[in-house]
Amino acid sequence: MAHIDLPEGLPGIVGPMTAYPESGAALNGLAEVLLRGPSPLTPAERELIATYVSRRNECVFCANTHAAVARVHYGDACGLVDQVLERGTDAPLGEKMRALLVIADRVRQDGRSVSEADVARARAAGADDRTIHDTVLVAAAFCMFNRYVDGLGTWAPAEPAVYAQIGEMLAGTGYARALSPSADDPERRP
Amino acid sequence: MAHIDLPEGLPGIVGPMTAYPESGAALNGLAEVLLRGPSPLTPAERELIATYVSRRNECVFCANTHAAVARVHYGDACGLVDQVLERGTDAPLGEKMRALLVIADRVRQDGRSVSEADVARARAAGADDRTIHDTVLVAAAFCMFNRYVDGLGTWAPAEPAVYAQIGEMLAGTGYARALSPSADDPERRP
Repeated sequence: MAHIDLPEGLPGIVGPMTAYPESGAALNGLAEVLLRGPSPLTPAERELIATYVSRRNECVFCANTHAAVARVHYGDACGLVDQVLERGTDAPLGEKMRALLVIADRVRQDGRSVSEADVARARAAGADDRTIHDTVLVAAAFCMFNRYVDGLGTWAPAEPAVYAQIGEMLAGTGYARALSPSADDPERRP
Repeated sequence: MAHIDLPEGLPGIVGPMTAYPESGAALNGLAEVLLRGPSPLTPAERELIATYVSRRNECVFCANTHAAVARVHYGDACGLVDQVLERGTDAPLGEKMRALLVIADRVRQDGRSVSEADVARARAAGADDRTIHDTVLVAAAFCMFNRYVDGLGTWAPAEPAVYAQIGEMLAGTGYARALSPSADDPERRP
């Protein structure tokens, strides 16, 4: 059970974002910029970073949700997302994405652990300043989202079909409007 | 030296927020809602939570900056903020703030480590649902801000006077407009 009273039946972050719509809107606005806004990284690549960080933080709701979004963006016939969930950087990734996931995991552990060698490896594989910036910020942001979801003890559905449905929705419409229907609901919590 | 090219002379998070103004605006929007928006916690109390989490994450720029903001909000004649920086929850806090800092540190370590007993202790000291929600989200958010600042290897000034000046500015005008002057600067980075 969650640590605070939340609307029934809403999974993971959707509960507190609906109950507290001001911070919910700010969080969705940030997610939209980070995961869908202009970047040298594709939305698929950014969702994969989000998935990897959430998996390493063992945040079930976020890992399953962003894996589902990443699968839609990748048109994931080869099962890459599942391999990253299971094998992390041993998955069959290109060298740039592998180097970026290494940086993301350093950020996850402690920002100060990102080394010059980590950054040099990513640059050698084609990452520019903005790619490195966006990787660090996406990884950092999921250290927030994961803690928000788990620190409140929210509910993570067990059924893969639930995440597949959320993944289709988020990959299609993005984050900025993800909560609009409930935000317009006069019965929503204050 | 920072891991990416950043505008010279801008301390900590100000560098990447200026260089990447789209995410900078989303981050400042979130900070404004979390630290200055409606909440049962005063801005002083929320800045103290931000300070404590940043200190525990050993993020020098964020800890010094938000300590400076908290000092202004508290009108800190008794040195409470410095005691929290030095002694954490052994500082002379009221029971509610002590219980909230305990929750914030659990969130910092791993959201899943927040226990029912932690929440019950905060409730017994007067914390309601929204107080607990806001504490968890502020703590989670500073796990992001700290990692963004340190994961990019940004510069943290050594001089207390720099933080005092930033503290006065942020306590006065808030976060939403903190970057406006540079955002209007035609020479800003793309």
